[in-house]
Amino acid sequence: MEALEGTKRVIIENVKPELNCGQYPVKRVVGEELTVSADIFTDGHDEVKAVLLYRHSKKKKWEEVPMEFLGNDRWQGTFIPDAMGLYEYTLQGWIDHFYTWQKGLKKKFEANQDITVELQIGAQFLEAAAAEAKPGQQKRLRKWAEELKHATSFADAVELATGSDVTDQYNASAERKNVTTYSKILGVDVERQKALFSAWYEFFPRSAAQEAGRHGTFQDCERLLPRIAEMGFDTIYLPPIHPIGREFRKGKNNAVTAQPGEPGSPWAIGAAEGGHKSILPELGTVEDFRNFVQSARDHGIEIALDFAIQCAPDHPYVKEHPQWFKWRPDGTVQYAENPPKKYQDVLPVNFETEDWQNLWKELRSILLYWIDQGVHIFRVDNPHTKSFHFWEWVIKDVRRQHPQIIFLAEAFTRPRVMERLGKIGFTQSYTYFTWRTTPEEMREYVTELTKTDMREYYRPNFWPNTPDILPPHLTHGGEPAHIARVVMAATLSSNYGLYGPVYEFGLTEPMPGKEEYINSEKYEIHHWDWGRLTKIREVITKINRIRKVNPALQTTWNVAFGDADNPNILCYGKWDSNFENRMLVVINMDPHNTQSGWVRVPLDELKLNKGQQYLMHDLLSEHKYTWTDEWNYVELRPWEMPVHVFRIETVTAGLG
Amino acid sequence: MEALEGTKRVIIENVKPELNCGQYPVKRVVGEELTVSADIFTDGHDEVKAVLLYRHSKKKKWEEVPMEFLGNDRWQGTFIPDAMGLYEYTLQGWIDHFYTWQKGLKKKFEANQDITVELQIGAQFLEAAAAEAKPGQQKRLRKWAEELKHATSFADAVELATGSDVTDQYNASAERKNVTTYSKILGVDVERQKALFSAWYEFFPRSAAQEAGRHGTFQDCERLLPRIAEMGFDTIYLPPIHPIGREFRKGKNNAVTAQPGEPGSPWAIGAAEGGHKSILPELGTVEDFRNFVQSARDHGIEIALDFAIQCAPDHPYVKEHPQWFKWRPDGTVQYAENPPKKYQDVLPVNFETEDWQNLWKELRSILLYWIDQGVHIFRVDNPHTKSFHFWEWVIKDVRRQHPQIIFLAEAFTRPRVMERLGKIGFTQSYTYFTWRTTPEEMREYVTELTKTDMREYYRPNFWPNTPDILPPHLTHGGEPAHIARVVMAATLSSNYGLYGPVYEFGLTEPMPGKEEYINSEKYEIHHWDWGRLTKIREVITKINRIRKVNPALQTTWNVAFGDADNPNILCYGKWDSNFENRMLVVINMDPHNTQSGWVRVPLDELKLNKGQQYLMHDLLSEHKYTWTDEWNYVELRPWEMPVHVFRIETVTAGLG
Repeated sequence: MEALEGTKRVIIENVKPELNCGQYPVKRVVGEELTVSADIFTDGHDEVKAVLLYRHSKKKKWEEVPMEFLGNDRWQGTFIPDAMGLYEYTLQGWIDHFYTWQKGLKKKFEANQDITVELQIGAQFLEAAAAEAKPGQQKRLRKWAEELKHATSFADAVELATGSDVTDQYNASAERKNVTTYSKILGVDVERQKALFSAWYEFFPRSAAQEAGRHGTFQDCERLLPRIAEMGFDTIYLPPIHPIGREFRKGKNNAVTAQPGEPGSPWAIGAAEGGHKSILPELGTVEDFRNFVQSARDHGIEIALDFAIQCAPDHPYVKEHPQWFKWRPDGTVQYAENPPKKYQDVLPVNFETEDWQNLWKELRSILLYWIDQGVHIFRVDNPHTKSFHFWEWVIKDVRRQHPQIIFLAEAFTRPRVMERLGKIGFTQSYTYFTWRTTPEEMREYVTELTKTDMREYYRPNFWPNTPDILPPHLTHGGEPAHIARVVMAATLSSNYGLYGPVYEFGLTEPMPGKEEYINSEKYEIHHWDWGRLTKIREVITKINRIRKVNPALQTTWNVAFGDADNPNILCYGKWDSNFENRMLVVINMDPHNTQSGWVRVPLDELKLNKGQQYLMHDLLSEHKYTWTDEWNYVELRPWEMPVHVFRIETVTAGLG
Repeated sequence: MEALEGTKRVIIENVKPELNCGQYPVKRVVGEELTVSADIFTDGHDEVKAVLLYRHSKKKKWEEVPMEFLGNDRWQGTFIPDAMGLYEYTLQGWIDHFYTWQKGLKKKFEANQDITVELQIGAQFLEAAAAEAKPGQQKRLRKWAEELKHATSFADAVELATGSDVTDQYNASAERKNVTTYSKILGVDVERQKALFSAWYEFFPRSAAQEAGRHGTFQDCERLLPRIAEMGFDTIYLPPIHPIGREFRKGKNNAVTAQPGEPGSPWAIGAAEGGHKSILPELGTVEDFRNFVQSARDHGIEIALDFAIQCAPDHPYVKEHPQWFKWRPDGTVQYAENPPKKYQDVLPVNFETEDWQNLWKELRSILLYWIDQGVHIFRVDNPHTKSFHFWEWVIKDVRRQHPQIIFLAEAFTRPRVMERLGKIGFTQSYTYFTWRTTPEEMREYVTELTKTDMREYYRPNFWPNTPDILPPHLTHGGEPAHIARVVMAATLSSNYGLYGPVYEFGLTEPMPGKEEYINSEKYEIHHWDWGRLTKIREVITKINRIRKVNPALQTTWNVAFGDADNPNILCYGKWDSNFENRMLVVINMDPHNTQSGWVRVPLDELKLNKGQQYLMHDLLSEHKYTWTDEWNYVELRPWEMPVHVFRIETVTAGLG
């Protein structure tokens, strides 16, 4: 019976956000606000007050924010975390008897009732507060109590008793009693701002050489930095840079057997030279790598490494830790397969091994090794085929020491699995963006990502292509599709990326019957004419610059879709937290035909008034248009420019 | 690191139902099924299996039900509790490596691959199972293992390995490994069937006398039992039967001062003769009361008492336990008020008293006292003005010893408060039914009650009127409105009730400007002509009989609304769990005009085929109609009969 704290009458429930009953923290970046809401109420008709409490988990003291009453027993409060790491939050509510008394007093006075006894009750409140007040404040409270007790004018007494002096002093002095504290302490994982705003460029370092016929090196990669920086990317993601297995090495176009001299897939990690902590000798030394990382940093670019937990048959782990693999009765290790498909060059690790603790520690040591070499971002290959518990542990453990580390989950699989990876700690996640090809599909998907619980734990990273994925709309849609898709990725999601060279050079030939690039760099070295200028590259460069100067595009969550009377046209607004920067993006998703029609600007969400004129400044074309009110006309010619990226620049008086 | 149980790879989350993270049990009655669903999945492509575990909390052993895969990583299982009390349930999931192997084997065989090594792996599975099997079963498993190892025909071996003999024996013998058990044990509060199916008749015992001018007694009440049983009610609810306070007693029509001889409000509980454990002497003795309870039971009727935690100023508690009340500076106890309104004849109890533990125990003793007198149902007056924690404790505590006790919450207040009372243990709850006056409002409200989480913890009890509530549609709608509302209450909700005499006799005069009865029985004794027959009474009698023989009407949750092309018409289907009993109710909610139109039968939910004819038997009028397919015509004349209560009786071959 004691445990029930019988005199506490306030209930706090249905707290949002709260993931899996508080098992997982929600996600924010430094400076990004968290709004917490809850049902907070009591029995009867007494007045309730509530506060939101929060603190960095390394601090003892809770900060307190008053919560606002929204109606229907719902309350809400907001705070902005200002450092990386885990924050905690919880809620408190209590009955404010003094405020209840003040409201009743006013009503009775207004109904011309005798309030003599009420004023004596008020004096009791003030005297009780005085007894709990600091010495300097007791006198005022006692003076007011006397004034209420001996009031000659009810009107004056009510004015005094309900005024801000008395209210503020009472609240500052009186102890809150019977305070209900929410039963859970919830978490917010606060990451650096790059977790929410990043532009990724992927290329194979072995194809980085300026001249044909030579294996690229990290020094070649360094020479590419100015062009990638000039294009506006802030993150370079490299496929695995480790020694490549020789046993069962794959040849060109995924041939089962490699010809002599063929380089193999970088994802078949490990050979006699070493495993996950080694570098393929042809790329250079660890010194070369560190120089490249430093040089990239000088260009404002971070290097993201691939973390693929799998081994070529000749990876040293297979001999050193045979217990980490599944052995077959014929004395071989079970390779990866999806029956009847076989991937003989890749051995998965067995997460059900009894030696799992040593396995986990070794895998963590790989991350820590590369963190030591200056790597702060990992793109994790197929995390959905490794144990969830392992990821939960390793991400938490690594980020405890190194809160700046970013993990991108490359999982293309079922929704619940993708969501779970976000919940257990991945900073960013690949998405289904690549396969959403109509305006309706895109609206629905982005709404799911941004307006449901997913917003709390799943940070999308939109990729129009990858070395594994050449979607049919790129193959058939050519340059206009490439432009539309990259602008959509870069403006719908504040995190986006490209498998770069093929995209900027507009390569679109697939493996026959597949949605993959032919002659894939996964199995061979390419030579790129890195100096080549293309219209696609120009648009990429522009859109990256536009992102950098328009805060509306630096978050994913502020998006509102407009309508269009043409089903080929997608239209959405974005805005910054002060509504000083407002954008409207309009896309023709049909790469073959001019599409025109009327689009509805989401005026409400953009906080624009109805019936006004405003100036639409297309930051890609530099054209300007005068628009009026909600519905306006657009016409997009795909071979000219399939998109408008408008900044709503000048608004007439009365707007805003 | 150990706590993570590193080799378990299956995740269980998003379990439904689960109230407040498992803090509160969901509700069922004996024999009512509970379907539990969850997201259950693993990393990679291995095959998952899952079971639902349940047990009565007094038993140690868990029962196990296999869960069914619904697609998209969602699983579901069902069990039916067969005793009152608290049940527990949880979930388990694991990877079925043997089944994974069987599926892979089949695919490889079908793709003409060499499966020699696969068969050896299968033999290993069977040998491992043999080592864990009971002695009598080891031989078969080892024999099969040998057959796989030395298979001469791949086809025969695959057939053997994937056949049901091997599968069943393997599953019976092999220990499940790395089983994930859901992190919580969830609860189901299982009540007796009356919790879900009941018909209540409310009357004031002091008005029970057959002859005018006399105070009714329990003996008079006994004489009413045959007529109430004949009308088909199974529960009689009596307003408080305790001594009524004399201080500040209210007069006729809530007059501030009572005239000599006026009886006062039964809710002003307590006087010199006694308090909550005493009986108003005019009603009779406790012996009389016990006789009445027993006699009612003989008629198949239970007596529900009012439990109102409040005291008249002369209630003995005020002197005996002054610490349970709020005292004012003028030496009086704070009476109930909602400023500027005052209720001087009723003193609320102060749940913030430091002596709360003794208060709680005393209040519990009131319930236990009446349980000792044979009362198993309590209608709780205004529970929303008493501490939630108290209700949670007292209901749990009383029901632990007396699981048959039913508590009905009479809370007409804000949604979150009403919902909370359901969550913390009230068996049934009054609702907003009384104020839903259009078909659209009714559809929306009943959908909220039956198709959201509320279904798990909030059992509605629909009342067309109460002594406090005479809604305007009854005042203005007369007999047709009374008939339509009682049929709706009795068929939409399997629990319903009436403030009886005024309803069956069709009294509709309000207090001027209020939605209350004039000359309310709350403040005076009425004399009723108990022998009088009315059309309303006849419909009540019929609808109660219809409810008793049609299981479709004995649950609230199975309801599906049809459409109507006339906005005055409401149409809904109901069905039993076997789809052997199907009902369709059609209501004209306009009491003044004949309304006609086409209604859509919810064929899918009723599991009726499209394009068929069926016989609609109106159980109220005994008319029959032949209907065809989905849309059919109705015409309802309010002064004749504003409702159809159809049983769908004869269906042509091919239906069902």
